[in-house]
Amino acid sequence: MFEEKEKTSIERLGEFKLIDHLTSSFETKHKETLLGVGDDAAIIKFNNATQLVSTEIFIENIHFDMMYSPLVHIGYKCITASISDIYAMNATPKQVLVSIALSSKYTLQAAEELYTGIRAACEKYNIDLIGGDTSSSVTGMAITVTSIGYADESKIVKRSGAKEGDLLCVSGDLGGAYMGLQLLEREKQVFLETKDMQPDLEGKDYVIGRQLRPEARKDIIELLEELSILPTSMIDVSDGLSSEIFHLCKNSNIGMKIYEDKLPIDQQTYDTALEFNVPPTTTAMNGGEDYELLFTLPQSQYDKIKNSLDISVIGYCTAAHEGKEIITKSGSVVPLEAQGWDTLGTTEESSTEDN
Amino acid sequence: MFEEKEKTSIERLGEFKLIDHLTSSFETKHKETLLGVGDDAAIIKFNNATQLVSTEIFIENIHFDMMYSPLVHIGYKCITASISDIYAMNATPKQVLVSIALSSKYTLQAAEELYTGIRAACEKYNIDLIGGDTSSSVTGMAITVTSIGYADESKIVKRSGAKEGDLLCVSGDLGGAYMGLQLLEREKQVFLETKDMQPDLEGKDYVIGRQLRPEARKDIIELLEELSILPTSMIDVSDGLSSEIFHLCKNSNIGMKIYEDKLPIDQQTYDTALEFNVPPTTTAMNGGEDYELLFTLPQSQYDKIKNSLDISVIGYCTAAHEGKEIITKSGSVVPLEAQGWDTLGTTEESSTEDN
Repeated sequence: MFEEKEKTSIERLGEFKLIDHLTSSFETKHKETLLGVGDDAAIIKFNNATQLVSTEIFIENIHFDMMYSPLVHIGYKCITASISDIYAMNATPKQVLVSIALSSKYTLQAAEELYTGIRAACEKYNIDLIGGDTSSSVTGMAITVTSIGYADESKIVKRSGAKEGDLLCVSGDLGGAYMGLQLLEREKQVFLETKDMQPDLEGKDYVIGRQLRPEARKDIIELLEELSILPTSMIDVSDGLSSEIFHLCKNSNIGMKIYEDKLPIDQQTYDTALEFNVPPTTTAMNGGEDYELLFTLPQSQYDKIKNSLDISVIGYCTAAHEGKEIITKSGSVVPLEAQGWDTLGTTEESSTEDN
Repeated sequence: MFEEKEKTSIERLGEFKLIDHLTSSFETKHKETLLGVGDDAAIIKFNNATQLVSTEIFIENIHFDMMYSPLVHIGYKCITASISDIYAMNATPKQVLVSIALSSKYTLQAAEELYTGIRAACEKYNIDLIGGDTSSSVTGMAITVTSIGYADESKIVKRSGAKEGDLLCVSGDLGGAYMGLQLLEREKQVFLETKDMQPDLEGKDYVIGRQLRPEARKDIIELLEELSILPTSMIDVSDGLSSEIFHLCKNSNIGMKIYEDKLPIDQQTYDTALEFNVPPTTTAMNGGEDYELLFTLPQSQYDKIKNSLDISVIGYCTAAHEGKEIITKSGSVVPLEAQGWDTLGTTEESSTEDN
């Protein structure tokens, strides 16, 4: 957990600030460029067709660890994590390009395993692999996936359309991937210290699966289509609920109120969090890598989703000046922080780790 | 030179064999996917518009070396090298997505310098930066650029259209980038051994520039358009003339004959090659990173290009069974090798290095 905290904060710096800072002086000039940097995917329009394009980079020992991630799952996860950005625009991914850099420690068989996972994800999500590049690397593995998707322009959902009064909804449950990571990191440490120990992951299949082989929520996009729901804004939960809420609020110029007791947390996630002395709510708010969809809806659409077991209404949109707040189970109102794991107060042990 | 030989052969294995091997079991399913893996760029078609997409990965100490590559040039080169693939399809690049992974040794200022180069290239080539991703890395820098371009479908030139009897043409001159690399590697070694030495690069500005800050041949695509020439096949010279010839021959199912005395070699490249005991022809055949365009034309088009100082006719296409051969200045006929630096016989010293 120590390590992940550090990693996440570096990644967040990257995701939140660095790319904005670095690209702020860039202007787009082509009429084909409908939307550039700043959403889950860029939007290209030509011949009256709209296309979504997104790219993600995955680095060994930052995004995955060969000690506990089978290559086939790494390949699978790179694809699902990437196309999740296309679904988050309410679009259908159809193509990917995959570039890999491999150090000499990797054999051809290792690369084949990686591509077995890539192929499994492409088949499951009906994606064409249309290009890529390979390179050697000095150390470790780097993978980049560019995802391309399509939607009618009128159906594309950005981060920027949420309105005051809209409901905030999230698919599935949160925090599982993070607790899976904590378990895997703990077992790795145990293994490194006492080589003959067997991993103790019994009964943890759900959270381990959430970490190692996440799915993209294609089904939610299809469900929304079936229900004739067009979200007003949407984003996928890759960095953690809290940070995604900040994105939606910033891009839509709104505030949000979240109810702690509405956060969807799987029982296994909950139990594992307690085992690690992490408040389950913190896990759900800041965990990341769940690849669930977070979206806003006009209140008038509530009846359409109220019976869906896979969509939770967790809060609502307010005016920007009202800020971003979570209403705790005890009824107190706490400002949300995009980063930092101590939003809701962690145990003394874990808060001292946050350096 | 020792090091580069090894690097190149690893990269070539990657470019030639690994990606084909890894993706051979993938099938494309979507009607939008006109062409997948196997050319300079993939071709996407929707609403009767055609689009080209290509991705390239650049890894520190494989593709660039911070000892002698200013970050601003690295940024510039990543863009030009990537969009070169779009020009090689006879198309116009309009968008790029850039992902970077940086280790903690890099400061914000370093990232800004990189993006200064990226912006300079985007401005020069009229490209919109529309997306990207940032990540930390454990060691070094990784950059991935996805380039997107456009062309009328009837104007797209693949690797596969060359016909027996077609002329083989190349833009600019060859081998310069490779000799620039040799110089920079030599000065690096000198510097590492005797820290107070100043680099001795006087009079080498051309080859150094070819290595550090190459251009993409947008002007050649525009010239071909002006001359109403549609090449029958085309590829950019990124891995070396010899290997690109192998690609064209394989994809077009033809053979080729090349004339050694027609190879365009700049005087500075020539002199530097001799200084390094490398036959200039070897440099031109195998050097790589020149980002010139190699293309084939029907003989009937010869009159249109014969007066162009920037296009050299270096050979012609034969039947596949005639193989790939170079006719040396002395008139002997030597089979071409895609890889290996000893095609034309290097000096004894350098050939013993090729292990």
